[in-house]
Amino acid sequence: MNRPAKAPADLHPLTDTTANERLYRYESSVKQAFDNIVPVLKQIASERCDPDFVDRAQQITAQEFGFELPAHILDTAWATGLDMRRLFAWCVFETYRRVSDEFFNADPLGGRVGNDFQAFLQQCGFHLMDITPCADGRLAHAISYVLRLPYGAVRRKSYAGSLFDIENTVEKWIETELMRFREGIPNRADEPTRYLKVVIYHFSSVDPAHQGCAAHGSDDEAAAREGWERLAALRQAIENGFCCGASVGLLLIGMDTDTDAIRVHVPDTNGYCELNQWLDVAKVHEITRGLSAAEARTRIAELVQAHMPGSHAGGAQANGMGASSTDGLSDKGMLQLIARLIENNLSQIDYVRHFHDGHYQDIGHAERFIGTGIGFEEIQLRNLTYFAYLSTVEEGAADLDVGIKIFTGLNVSRSLPVPIVVRYDYHGNVPGARERAVAHCERIAAALKARYPALCSDGMLHCLRAVRDCDAGTPIELVGSSLEPVTGGMH
Amino acid sequence: MNRPAKAPADLHPLTDTTANERLYRYESSVKQAFDNIVPVLKQIASERCDPDFVDRAQQITAQEFGFELPAHILDTAWATGLDMRRLFAWCVFETYRRVSDEFFNADPLGGRVGNDFQAFLQQCGFHLMDITPCADGRLAHAISYVLRLPYGAVRRKSYAGSLFDIENTVEKWIETELMRFREGIPNRADEPTRYLKVVIYHFSSVDPAHQGCAAHGSDDEAAAREGWERLAALRQAIENGFCCGASVGLLLIGMDTDTDAIRVHVPDTNGYCELNQWLDVAKVHEITRGLSAAEARTRIAELVQAHMPGSHAGGAQANGMGASSTDGLSDKGMLQLIARLIENNLSQIDYVRHFHDGHYQDIGHAERFIGTGIGFEEIQLRNLTYFAYLSTVEEGAADLDVGIKIFTGLNVSRSLPVPIVVRYDYHGNVPGARERAVAHCERIAAALKARYPALCSDGMLHCLRAVRDCDAGTPIELVGSSLEPVTGGMH
Repeated sequence: MNRPAKAPADLHPLTDTTANERLYRYESSVKQAFDNIVPVLKQIASERCDPDFVDRAQQITAQEFGFELPAHILDTAWATGLDMRRLFAWCVFETYRRVSDEFFNADPLGGRVGNDFQAFLQQCGFHLMDITPCADGRLAHAISYVLRLPYGAVRRKSYAGSLFDIENTVEKWIETELMRFREGIPNRADEPTRYLKVVIYHFSSVDPAHQGCAAHGSDDEAAAREGWERLAALRQAIENGFCCGASVGLLLIGMDTDTDAIRVHVPDTNGYCELNQWLDVAKVHEITRGLSAAEARTRIAELVQAHMPGSHAGGAQANGMGASSTDGLSDKGMLQLIARLIENNLSQIDYVRHFHDGHYQDIGHAERFIGTGIGFEEIQLRNLTYFAYLSTVEEGAADLDVGIKIFTGLNVSRSLPVPIVVRYDYHGNVPGARERAVAHCERIAAALKARYPALCSDGMLHCLRAVRDCDAGTPIELVGSSLEPVTGGMH
Repeated sequence: MNRPAKAPADLHPLTDTTANERLYRYESSVKQAFDNIVPVLKQIASERCDPDFVDRAQQITAQEFGFELPAHILDTAWATGLDMRRLFAWCVFETYRRVSDEFFNADPLGGRVGNDFQAFLQQCGFHLMDITPCADGRLAHAISYVLRLPYGAVRRKSYAGSLFDIENTVEKWIETELMRFREGIPNRADEPTRYLKVVIYHFSSVDPAHQGCAAHGSDDEAAAREGWERLAALRQAIENGFCCGASVGLLLIGMDTDTDAIRVHVPDTNGYCELNQWLDVAKVHEITRGLSAAEARTRIAELVQAHMPGSHAGGAQANGMGASSTDGLSDKGMLQLIARLIENNLSQIDYVRHFHDGHYQDIGHAERFIGTGIGFEEIQLRNLTYFAYLSTVEEGAADLDVGIKIFTGLNVSRSLPVPIVVRYDYHGNVPGARERAVAHCERIAAALKARYPALCSDGMLHCLRAVRDCDAGTPIELVGSSLEPVTGGMH
């Protein structure tokens, strides 16, 4: 936050400096809140021999964190010693709760409502944008920062390796179509727009062999290919399962997790893209930096058009030969949408250059906690959370094991426990849904305990349980924690 | 099969004796195939000292079962002794496969296509009948026998305690509505028909305190009440989640698992029913047995009408006061449908009287194997299969534990292993769906092994894995088994 701003001359003419300042304030304040925990606890630990220790500790945390420590942990310190691990986990959970509450109460990123973007998307020929970034924490800011989209106006479903669930996406497509037919939301079914599915795979320009996508063994080609295969399979599933020209739009994007620059695999008029052909936005930045804003926009549109497969080769494909499921409207609209994403990404490239010296210092994992279950809309910051989205530990065990391995390096090696937030969002208008969500959290927490018994019994894994009514727009509701005071043994 | 038929004078005039004969032939032949396994294996065991043992064993099984035993189990008998437990499990799985294949290849119940019933259902004001019986094996014949419905024309989703998954049913409702809007299947969305959700709870007239629904502690009132609560919650979920009069029809039915007589909680014109008021089809049988077929039909219609709540009380409710989500068409249609179900059930009451001496000998559990996963459309026989429908062992553990307990009594106590068929049906028109179904089977089998390690290592639990493309209408495909020959240790 105290970093001196570089001269605007460095910046691209299309960069939104006001947004960059605001986004940086949010990023640094949230991360600072987490990163402050260890130094403050060290200070508290150093005063544990003080006769007024409990008062002193509360005084320090009230001042540094803005909240008090739980009495049931401090009060037993005189007898059993101060359990710094429990205090650490408790502070991480409390900080998470405060960050989450602020997000839902105050909308600090201003992305909850996205009417302008929704209108633009429909102009481009799409009624819903459904994005799957990798679940890697280094892509958690993909929507709000890297692409600068209002998180409330797009669907985000993160999966390890960006390998989204086809059956689940078909269900969402069905639900979306029915809302168009029955209720005209977001537009009527007879309007010629499509559902757009986007995959964002990732790679590392600084350390390509080690810091790429773990799910694909840092093999960028495999990440792109398998992402595209999943997209093509979704389209085939919908075209096979439904008649009358049912289809979806597809878009494949790569992202450099060191610089946040994206590369776009511009699709041809048949909706297919080339895996080894893309438009690199870092290059777009370079090419258009010296132009005026208006000139840069024109040049970007030209570059997007030029990167359509077939546009160099004489346009045989570009004439829409074959059983095309797209039409002129959505071709043109797809190019407009891509141009907008590129323009948005230019701001993020300058964000990283300006505030993070060109590339992030934490090119690898530096997450503050593990988030597992269904939800976490409020996590829009890079490297804050390792995600293991899952309905059951049985299905998500591989992702969880990776998370535990990462946190063994990040935390356990420093004698700090692994903090896991188990979250389950539900639709409050469905009777009994809240109770089922709470039960689901408890089942996941029990399965975590069964999977990592040694960590749990050593106090090296702690678990917070939270649910949220995603229809109501309210903050999360805490429903339990492994840090709760142990009550009497009478029941 | 050799039972002497009683004089037709005993039968209700509406009983379909031809269907009863055909259904009994199918039931007895399938059950005989399973129940033959132990006596034949005993015979084989008695000849294990014979020098030509392997040939002799194959000769006996070819004659008795119509299939051969696996060479890899017989061939090691000279060295390790004959592993009768493995042979038993193998024979159960092979018999299951043959029964399943016959079902999908030859449609022995003639219920695959149900165009007449579908047309009748739509006349009654419903475009889909979605039935949840309890997953208890004593209700596995509810569709094809107890209600005499073509299994291909109704949706069956069994759950322990008949407590169906609301979110999953809302999804199915959405899918059904979209098909009506987009493709006019089974009828157009502007036709005034509704989705009908039916719950069948159960009780035991012979031993009501012990042989009722285990999930409800044999408390019939609780079984009815919780079934109705689930139905009402589904309707509320759909009315809350969708505008423009979206709703569903609801029907609550009780079933006596000893006699197969049902009782119908006839709903009022607002779509609500009374939990302590029903029309008992055993009584209908008694009242109408002496009439002609035509007179009996008329009397049944009168009885159904008379059992609508409010029809005795002067009809305040029957005038449709309040925010009714039903209309005249579906009120009348609901009564017609109920009358049809009652008429169908009369045949089944006579079936049990005629072929099973008035009530089943196996009033408790007598299942031949456990079925777990998603699928089992071919299981339409009473007490053949204990079902634990589940996506993961983590979520379905309670149902599985009950199944293991039941089979500890049925099999393990006789030194026979628990045979479990793990099944996962998939939609073959979705790319990659088969591979995911196979992987899902493997994950479930591994989780079973982790949950019941002692049974598995003692050879007292065996597991067959099968998948099926439910779009293609083809038989199941076996994808693995714990009985496969152990291959060399080189990989």
